[in-house]
Amino acid sequence: MPLQRVLDADSVAVIGASKNETKRGFQAIDTLLAEKYDGKIYPVNPKEKSILGLPCYANINDIAEPVDIALVATPARTVPAVLADCGRKGVAGAVILAGGFGELGAAGRRLEDEMVAVAREHGIRLIGPNTSGMMNLKRNLNLVGLKNVPRGDIALLTQSGNMALTLITEAKLKSRKGFTYYVGVGNEADIHFHEYLEFFGRDPDTRAVLMYVEGMREGRQFLQQAYRTTKNKPVILLKSGRSSTGKRSAGSHTGALAGMSEVARGAFQRAGVIVIENSDELFPAAETLSSLPPIRHNRVAILADGGGHATIAADLLTDLGLEIPQLGDKTRRRLKEILPAQASVPNPVDVAGGTDDNPAIFAECAKIILADSNVDGLLVVGLFGGYGIRFAKSLAFMEEDAAHRMGRMVAKGRKPIVFHSLYSSEKPHSLDLLRYYGIPVYDSLDVACKCISLLAHYGRFLSSYHAKTNFVFNWREKARPRGEAIIHRAASEGRTSLFEHEAKKLLALHGVDVFENQLATTADEAVAFAERVEGPVALKIVSPDILHKSDAGGVMLNLSSQKAVRRAFDDIMANARRFNKTADIRGVIVSPMVEAGIEVIIGTKIDGQFGPVIMFGMGGILVEVLKDVAFRVLPISPFTASRMIEEIRSAPLLDGYRGQPASDKKALKKLLLKCSELIESYPEIEEMDLNPVILHPQGVSIVDARILLKSQRSGDANAGDA
Amino acid sequence: MPLQRVLDADSVAVIGASKNETKRGFQAIDTLLAEKYDGKIYPVNPKEKSILGLPCYANINDIAEPVDIALVATPARTVPAVLADCGRKGVAGAVILAGGFGELGAAGRRLEDEMVAVAREHGIRLIGPNTSGMMNLKRNLNLVGLKNVPRGDIALLTQSGNMALTLITEAKLKSRKGFTYYVGVGNEADIHFHEYLEFFGRDPDTRAVLMYVEGMREGRQFLQQAYRTTKNKPVILLKSGRSSTGKRSAGSHTGALAGMSEVARGAFQRAGVIVIENSDELFPAAETLSSLPPIRHNRVAILADGGGHATIAADLLTDLGLEIPQLGDKTRRRLKEILPAQASVPNPVDVAGGTDDNPAIFAECAKIILADSNVDGLLVVGLFGGYGIRFAKSLAFMEEDAAHRMGRMVAKGRKPIVFHSLYSSEKPHSLDLLRYYGIPVYDSLDVACKCISLLAHYGRFLSSYHAKTNFVFNWREKARPRGEAIIHRAASEGRTSLFEHEAKKLLALHGVDVFENQLATTADEAVAFAERVEGPVALKIVSPDILHKSDAGGVMLNLSSQKAVRRAFDDIMANARRFNKTADIRGVIVSPMVEAGIEVIIGTKIDGQFGPVIMFGMGGILVEVLKDVAFRVLPISPFTASRMIEEIRSAPLLDGYRGQPASDKKALKKLLLKCSELIESYPEIEEMDLNPVILHPQGVSIVDARILLKSQRSGDANAGDA
Repeated sequence: MPLQRVLDADSVAVIGASKNETKRGFQAIDTLLAEKYDGKIYPVNPKEKSILGLPCYANINDIAEPVDIALVATPARTVPAVLADCGRKGVAGAVILAGGFGELGAAGRRLEDEMVAVAREHGIRLIGPNTSGMMNLKRNLNLVGLKNVPRGDIALLTQSGNMALTLITEAKLKSRKGFTYYVGVGNEADIHFHEYLEFFGRDPDTRAVLMYVEGMREGRQFLQQAYRTTKNKPVILLKSGRSSTGKRSAGSHTGALAGMSEVARGAFQRAGVIVIENSDELFPAAETLSSLPPIRHNRVAILADGGGHATIAADLLTDLGLEIPQLGDKTRRRLKEILPAQASVPNPVDVAGGTDDNPAIFAECAKIILADSNVDGLLVVGLFGGYGIRFAKSLAFMEEDAAHRMGRMVAKGRKPIVFHSLYSSEKPHSLDLLRYYGIPVYDSLDVACKCISLLAHYGRFLSSYHAKTNFVFNWREKARPRGEAIIHRAASEGRTSLFEHEAKKLLALHGVDVFENQLATTADEAVAFAERVEGPVALKIVSPDILHKSDAGGVMLNLSSQKAVRRAFDDIMANARRFNKTADIRGVIVSPMVEAGIEVIIGTKIDGQFGPVIMFGMGGILVEVLKDVAFRVLPISPFTASRMIEEIRSAPLLDGYRGQPASDKKALKKLLLKCSELIESYPEIEEMDLNPVILHPQGVSIVDARILLKSQRSGDANAGDA
Repeated sequence: MPLQRVLDADSVAVIGASKNETKRGFQAIDTLLAEKYDGKIYPVNPKEKSILGLPCYANINDIAEPVDIALVATPARTVPAVLADCGRKGVAGAVILAGGFGELGAAGRRLEDEMVAVAREHGIRLIGPNTSGMMNLKRNLNLVGLKNVPRGDIALLTQSGNMALTLITEAKLKSRKGFTYYVGVGNEADIHFHEYLEFFGRDPDTRAVLMYVEGMREGRQFLQQAYRTTKNKPVILLKSGRSSTGKRSAGSHTGALAGMSEVARGAFQRAGVIVIENSDELFPAAETLSSLPPIRHNRVAILADGGGHATIAADLLTDLGLEIPQLGDKTRRRLKEILPAQASVPNPVDVAGGTDDNPAIFAECAKIILADSNVDGLLVVGLFGGYGIRFAKSLAFMEEDAAHRMGRMVAKGRKPIVFHSLYSSEKPHSLDLLRYYGIPVYDSLDVACKCISLLAHYGRFLSSYHAKTNFVFNWREKARPRGEAIIHRAASEGRTSLFEHEAKKLLALHGVDVFENQLATTADEAVAFAERVEGPVALKIVSPDILHKSDAGGVMLNLSSQKAVRRAFDDIMANARRFNKTADIRGVIVSPMVEAGIEVIIGTKIDGQFGPVIMFGMGGILVEVLKDVAFRVLPISPFTASRMIEEIRSAPLLDGYRGQPASDKKALKKLLLKCSELIESYPEIEEMDLNPVILHPQGVSIVDARILLKSQRSGDANAGDA
């Protein structure tokens, strides 16, 4: 398995080992010994004979046994030479702690490139540089120097040492969970996010992957890997650095493409990644998702011992898209039997004092509610855990009994329970018991609601998995040879855009139903082309030197006679000459006039992190003023194309607003998919704009199509990002 | 002061006093004794001689001394008789614990009405019924039975006993704060939210009011009071029961007017109330706002000891509308002097290890940053409080030194500091010290960011206080006599709506620039009116029996000759007869055709909680499909009218989109204000619709105006809500 020798290393050389307790070269060895690493430890430092009782080597090549990885604790400038030594020794990987590389700008970047070149030459994989390190808690291989990290089933992958510390501290103080691995990716100079994700995805002991990300180098590969991993285990991610100040703080170099954070969120979600916006929810999300089965049908019951919490929870779950179904007759009858008359037994269920002298009734209620076939999961909110604290100690024993019973219910029944308890921070034993059974307990009502909603969210993803694009980014080769000819001709003429008729030809090659214009170089040709069209026509100038055709008087509409066409041709030529004396004028194209309908816009561009993205929106003010658009990373599936069409706010207009006929959404969907195919087929394309596209009751018309090609410069920029 | 004898009672009779430890009649006396209430306690129960060592009275009238309030712990059905006894004794108030009143529906409602009638007759003010009780923690007057409630400077006003328990528990476990008063408003049968708010507003020991609300009976009076109170102290409120399930859970009877929760939030915010959406933030908001001065200019600095927290905080504060300004040159130079080379000193400031061996440097940094005139407040995020835990005990003393210094800084400097600490839940002494100085500390980064943003939010409210409507709801009398005549004529004819020309007349009376139609009863009259109009005219039918004029063929447009007008008149009459043989046809109105322009809609209606509200939006799909509208509770100020116009998403269209001329926003604003005045002047109006209103480069045209009057039935419904 890739990375196995690195992350499951049987032996570690600590290069820059030290006797000074404040140095990482000391702390790392000290921690490995204290935590009882089950592999071999080799301190390397030419100035020492032994460190912490271990023999110290002058050079890694002095070690007789094989060495799997090196922890490099020496300064940045020494790293290339150290790696050359490591390479001769045949290590599989190195953890580079030092900062002073790419994050410092051009000079650091050069050093980073040099380091990576040495590593590649010797086949060494690098973690970092500029990282807090790595831990394999199954092997007690702790290269971070932080002791007593709880062991468990979550893999932690972050781009910030103090976020790792935050999450580890939270696990320790507020849960019974812990970690299989931790990796601080640092500058991601060699091993990228997706490679770690693949490894954690295959690790049988890891039940969820928890990520904090500021920026990603290989977004597309990550999406592809995430799509595979999330099918088997949840991946939870918080992405920061959205705001410009946040970016300044993160030192991120991602392009500031407007709406990009929307694109990123959408892309992650489509790949099944659970995207968290609120850092309070990050660890709880991983706790819940690694402990409980997903909810398949979105229907949740609330069990409360008071109205306020029930009301707030009902509001929140509704906002989070969950259903709070009415309970069945039988369920309500059975609840009525064990609860006082004033109890409320629709959903939410409010026990209304029914548990005051016996909180074990919570378990009875939970059993009855979870037996209801309308209910897929249960959220318990309120005071559970505090009856023994607030009232009498004996009630605590009843709470513990209830905890055992609910724990067994969850283990057997496959319907999850999540708890909110006001008394969580007082750490009553009953709540610890719930956690022992994998039932998470939160003192925040908001977090508890969010967590149960994520089980439903992940359940929805899993149940519609096959409807999604599989995020395999292989360029399609189908229509490519003929399309390439068009693109190459433009490129050979030094053009960075296709003419409108070339762009339409390219679309037609991929099966798009578009009127294929031909170039008319004389008035006679224009008239001849117009004759072949039914109804009036439009003439548009074709010139590489005239981009905004209307401004140059290069567009004439609604021409319905030979005479009109001939005159329009002459006028356009004259206008163009007047507009730009030296313009290279190729002729005009003749198009049929398009019937009225609903205007939409489709566009694509290349994003620095995720590659090609597509945008769809309604024409005119809806896009330009109201920004009512949908974005997706390409390629898109039929499912995703439908979702894009439905998710814009003005979507009802497509169904025939105010007596107008409904638009042909099927044709629109097909067009979006064809655009996806086209952009996949030609990596040479930088941007495509179909604007406007007119939707009819049957079919769509592409009125104008513009395709920009990558210039050498922009090609370089992309290569740099990759 | 109103309510003083009730909330600051010198003596309490406990009616339904008991020796049974499980009864509220026992717990209340036990708690009053245990907490050392400084007034007199009189148990009342005809079956007992003494309870808990206090002499017990058979009837409240057997008590020789005066009694300020009664705690009524007897069942619902006994309450009217108990109150009659209390009335004879001359008590000022009663706390009614029992449920079984209005919340149970019609029968309970009758009992509640009976109870309130007895109370009013005797001048007794009621807290509840269906309440957990009341506490005055300054006097140790604790009528709830919950012991050890922390004392402090926050007044707590809730509609849910378990939310009160949540907030009190949070105060105890996570802060050094506490409460002056607690009131559970219960069914709000007599004393309403605004009366408690007025009392807390005047209480010199209360520095903030913390509220949990599910539904309000007197929304308008609350807004009016809130506007006065929030000028002097912050009022923090969470309103639940938004979703339909939440409403079901809350048992709320508020009308389900679409967008109502938006109206409520907007109205509260305009009255200066800090509206909290997330229950995790509710207590922290009160803690921060009661402890620290507001931020006046919205500019905040972030001080961090690691990149991840700084980045997340920068994102969050930006989302929350705060500025994170670059620090001044001098500030940066001084920070550079005390921090290591790798530290980042724009804003956020990342000490980058500079505090590892001396966390007291946080105080130095804070001092330098707060001295910067570009900075109005400081958020410190990260590990502070944990240096002594994670590294060496001696570092804890340095943290404590820093806490003292920052505490004194805040006390002197009037610039607030808020802390996030990863180690908050480990309760290090340094963080307790910060809280002692009024510097709040949160273990949630999100909550810390939200809290500092609320200081800025409240500061903005205070600095623009006079620009807001003062929420005084006195009906204006100016144009009323003549307007009344129009309304009364319609009412006397049994109509529940005004004719279009009557509605326009009413608008004109209030100074709205509208074409005043006259009723033409013959074709000759119609022609004569048309002569007086410049350009073509429109004719519209006037009949109380024809509401949808176009559907009945009752509208003819673009008539530009006498002949056309005459024929249109005859056609309209014939169409109307055909449409409804028995229709009462009054004639037609003649209007000038309105020039094209941008269509908007203005509407008003009566909301069950807040009275008259106004809606403004762009005509057509923007309102109907995209719901792009702004709502406000009336009356509105010029400031608010401008905000309504600016806040709709399609607002840029008013500024002249795509080469069209800009619309007359001044005239639109004036029209909104006139609508506000008109609706204030005539409480008889149920709904008004100006649809469409056409905006021109100069002026606006009201094409159609519809005014519905309150029917007797709807008048009753409103009385019921009041």
